[in-house]
Amino acid sequence: MTGSDAGTLWWGWGTPAARTPLPAGVRSLLAQVLGVDCRDTPPVGLDAVRLPAVRLAEDARAALAGVIGPAWVHDDRESRVRHCRGRSTTDLLRLRAGDATDAPDAVILPACHDEVLATLAVCARYRLAVVPFGGGTSVVGGLAAACDGVAGVIALDTARMNRLVGVDAWSQLATADPGLRGPALDAALATHGFTLGHLPQSWEYATVGGFAATRSSGQASAGHGRFDSMVVGIRLATPVGTWELGRAPASAAGPDLRELVLGSEGAFGVITQVRLRVRPLPETIHYEGWRLADFTGAAAVLRILAQRDLLPTVARLSDEVETAAGLGGAGPATAGGCHLIIGYEGRAGWAAARRAEVGELLRTAGAAALGHDAGAEWLRGRFHGPYLRDALLDAGMFAETLETAGFWSALPGLYAGVRDAIAAALAAEDVPGVVMCHISHVYPTGASLYFTVVCPQLDEPVARWGRVKAAATRAIVDGGGTVTHHHAVGTEHQPWLAAEIGDIGLAVLRSVKDTLDPAGILNPGILLP
Amino acid sequence: MTGSDAGTLWWGWGTPAARTPLPAGVRSLLAQVLGVDCRDTPPVGLDAVRLPAVRLAEDARAALAGVIGPAWVHDDRESRVRHCRGRSTTDLLRLRAGDATDAPDAVILPACHDEVLATLAVCARYRLAVVPFGGGTSVVGGLAAACDGVAGVIALDTARMNRLVGVDAWSQLATADPGLRGPALDAALATHGFTLGHLPQSWEYATVGGFAATRSSGQASAGHGRFDSMVVGIRLATPVGTWELGRAPASAAGPDLRELVLGSEGAFGVITQVRLRVRPLPETIHYEGWRLADFTGAAAVLRILAQRDLLPTVARLSDEVETAAGLGGAGPATAGGCHLIIGYEGRAGWAAARRAEVGELLRTAGAAALGHDAGAEWLRGRFHGPYLRDALLDAGMFAETLETAGFWSALPGLYAGVRDAIAAALAAEDVPGVVMCHISHVYPTGASLYFTVVCPQLDEPVARWGRVKAAATRAIVDGGGTVTHHHAVGTEHQPWLAAEIGDIGLAVLRSVKDTLDPAGILNPGILLP
Repeated sequence: MTGSDAGTLWWGWGTPAARTPLPAGVRSLLAQVLGVDCRDTPPVGLDAVRLPAVRLAEDARAALAGVIGPAWVHDDRESRVRHCRGRSTTDLLRLRAGDATDAPDAVILPACHDEVLATLAVCARYRLAVVPFGGGTSVVGGLAAACDGVAGVIALDTARMNRLVGVDAWSQLATADPGLRGPALDAALATHGFTLGHLPQSWEYATVGGFAATRSSGQASAGHGRFDSMVVGIRLATPVGTWELGRAPASAAGPDLRELVLGSEGAFGVITQVRLRVRPLPETIHYEGWRLADFTGAAAVLRILAQRDLLPTVARLSDEVETAAGLGGAGPATAGGCHLIIGYEGRAGWAAARRAEVGELLRTAGAAALGHDAGAEWLRGRFHGPYLRDALLDAGMFAETLETAGFWSALPGLYAGVRDAIAAALAAEDVPGVVMCHISHVYPTGASLYFTVVCPQLDEPVARWGRVKAAATRAIVDGGGTVTHHHAVGTEHQPWLAAEIGDIGLAVLRSVKDTLDPAGILNPGILLP
Repeated sequence: MTGSDAGTLWWGWGTPAARTPLPAGVRSLLAQVLGVDCRDTPPVGLDAVRLPAVRLAEDARAALAGVIGPAWVHDDRESRVRHCRGRSTTDLLRLRAGDATDAPDAVILPACHDEVLATLAVCARYRLAVVPFGGGTSVVGGLAAACDGVAGVIALDTARMNRLVGVDAWSQLATADPGLRGPALDAALATHGFTLGHLPQSWEYATVGGFAATRSSGQASAGHGRFDSMVVGIRLATPVGTWELGRAPASAAGPDLRELVLGSEGAFGVITQVRLRVRPLPETIHYEGWRLADFTGAAAVLRILAQRDLLPTVARLSDEVETAAGLGGAGPATAGGCHLIIGYEGRAGWAAARRAEVGELLRTAGAAALGHDAGAEWLRGRFHGPYLRDALLDAGMFAETLETAGFWSALPGLYAGVRDAIAAALAAEDVPGVVMCHISHVYPTGASLYFTVVCPQLDEPVARWGRVKAAATRAIVDGGGTVTHHHAVGTEHQPWLAAEIGDIGLAVLRSVKDTLDPAGILNPGILLP
């Protein structure tokens, strides 16, 4: 076992068996829309990857081995490459090109909370930076800790902490280890008759600890809420000791400090246990597709659903471009307009009643039913995005996403502003590209906007994307949106964090960090500069 | 205008016109149950109240007057007495006995955020403690700042900041000043077709800023959620500047720092604006009563409602004692058992459908319908508790409440443990008393327990209650509950805060406090020791 690999590709998503070439239809569509042809752009071999020399001193290595056992300290090539950065497109492009210069010096796999505490003590003693590593699926640079000022960087992989610790069926609570991945968690819960209902696109590989550390939100957030709303209790291993929070469903005993741990991205401690609200397995699962005339009008219908407390479990609306590209969940939309996927999961009576009410409202708004098949198609492909991206990268193409959220009154301006900013930035780079968008998280007061950009890689795609993303984020800030709705800050969103929480917010986070991590060893450079 | 008085009694609740004598039926019930007779115990006159000398130096007074105008700096007897402590029973007993030794040296009424900022600068310069004062309805000692180490204590009354700043109807958002009281806020919202849906028992006098500062939860929390769940944005005036939070319905841009301001009780800054999610005025308002055989069984029915997403807007279950005392919302329960009040407020279609589903579930559980009249009676009396308490105090009786919340699996033990601890503590004091309880806040994972204690005052009621409350809180901590579900920490719950959030939690709060309030002038001794 070398940690969180699960037999996956070191340069991409999923297992080698799941790798698929870019479909011929997508190739010809890209040629037609972008005017560029695909070209084979394979990753280098593992042996060709450039790694920095291991900086871990022998005494520090021995101390770590003494704490968790020598079998769980790895500094071999593959382990280090597998824990180098996360899974943003620029992360993958650099890995595929053989650049693993951000790799940790070693990977360690503690078995339990006490071993994490002991590990932190060793790392503080030897000035080793600690990068908590769950599924390794960060897309915001959350795993690329700054290595200046420390004697080495250790990836603390939570893969061995992967039990469902317990279920309180009467209270509908489950206590989970941090390294439990989405499928394993749900499989374990299912034996008790429960499910979590948290299904981000990274679900297959992301972990409970990562969900909490990044304030994740999943595809079923309309019905089941964000991950943070599912967290009832949390335990953090910090350099100053164990911190446990959450004695009740709700409390007025001062500020809710759970909310300070959620989204802390390993900068305050290592999440070693999470207590979650779970739900009974659904009696009914029904997904269906709808077509609406235009994105802004369709978004206004989602607004009504949310404000009337009529949301389904899943609500996902693609704009005209995403719909035309066949990514709206119901195949290429020859009839134009926007595709909307609606899913109902829950009690049979609720699903039937809700479906009738939502259906009536949609029909009144002029929506045309696309039926169950459209919903089933979306369900089949709900986790396919990262696989398709690998195929695009293999074919010399570039694909990346970014997201925001805003209040309903700001949403049309935010949508136009960000789309236009990306288009203008691509034009300034002389790169032909497609910009698509969907809404996948809906609240009474507003919604998310999730943008996907596809273009050819050309030369220097990492630097080019940096400029495009900066332009998009500037438009988000100017348009009143949040710089990230469900992907955390990492290193990528740091320049805009002050726009989000103010300089006072940064100072507050810094003071919390200094209190919990006085030596500054926890994920340095992540969340806070 | 002398601040947040609104023509109310300086020693009690509400206006003099609302004062009522203890009903004869209650008198005879008390004699029968407790074996003690009522005796007239009126409050002293305002002139007889003992106040400490004003410590405010002339230059400090002039500086404050320079910032907000001399008309808005008050150090007259009545202003000071009116801002002395909050509205816990022990607060009132001490006031009624003429003890206003905790009174602030002066009361100031800034008109706006900028005046608050300027006030904080003056207070930092002259080492004056600042007690943010909304409705003055704290029941946990949240207004009795420590005065050692400072040159004086200033009550910063937000009464002049009382506008509904704006409504974004499309996003269902309202921006409110902190000094707006419940009725004024709802009246202003109603002109836009909206309501907030936050109705704690203190609603008539408590303010928006106080709701936020104390993590308040109202009687309609089953349907509309806690106050914290309604807060989308918040602005804080701190000694280090203005802190604004909340750009979107949800965000993953690090920890949710709004949750650090909610519940901060004036120790981190003065809340000067709150942005709230609002709801359309209900089409239907329907309340009804039910009778169930026993409290534990009835609580299990509420659990099912919550876990099936079938909660009404209001759900309030009184235990056998509270029901027998006629406080279960449907008059004295001659038939025994427990009374449950259920309210539906919202769209007509929703209310009818929900009422049918809930009714069926209740009937299946053996509940007997008490009809609409029982609900209407509870509605009429929903804010009467504090008035009844004044009448009890006038009659030489003592009445106080305390609350907790816990997970469903812990709830039966918590209920028995706290009830028994209160009874034992009263017995140890040789005081005959009645202990009642109700559930008024229900979640999928658990519920609140709200205890009411009625007994004769006898001698030293403040000290006696301190011992009883300590015993009850010890039982709460031992039983796995939270020390406060909706009344904040103040000074009363401080001894148990470490049991709730750990020493690390205290250190984190301290670091945040030191960052925002380096001079330590904000509500010293509140929230943190």
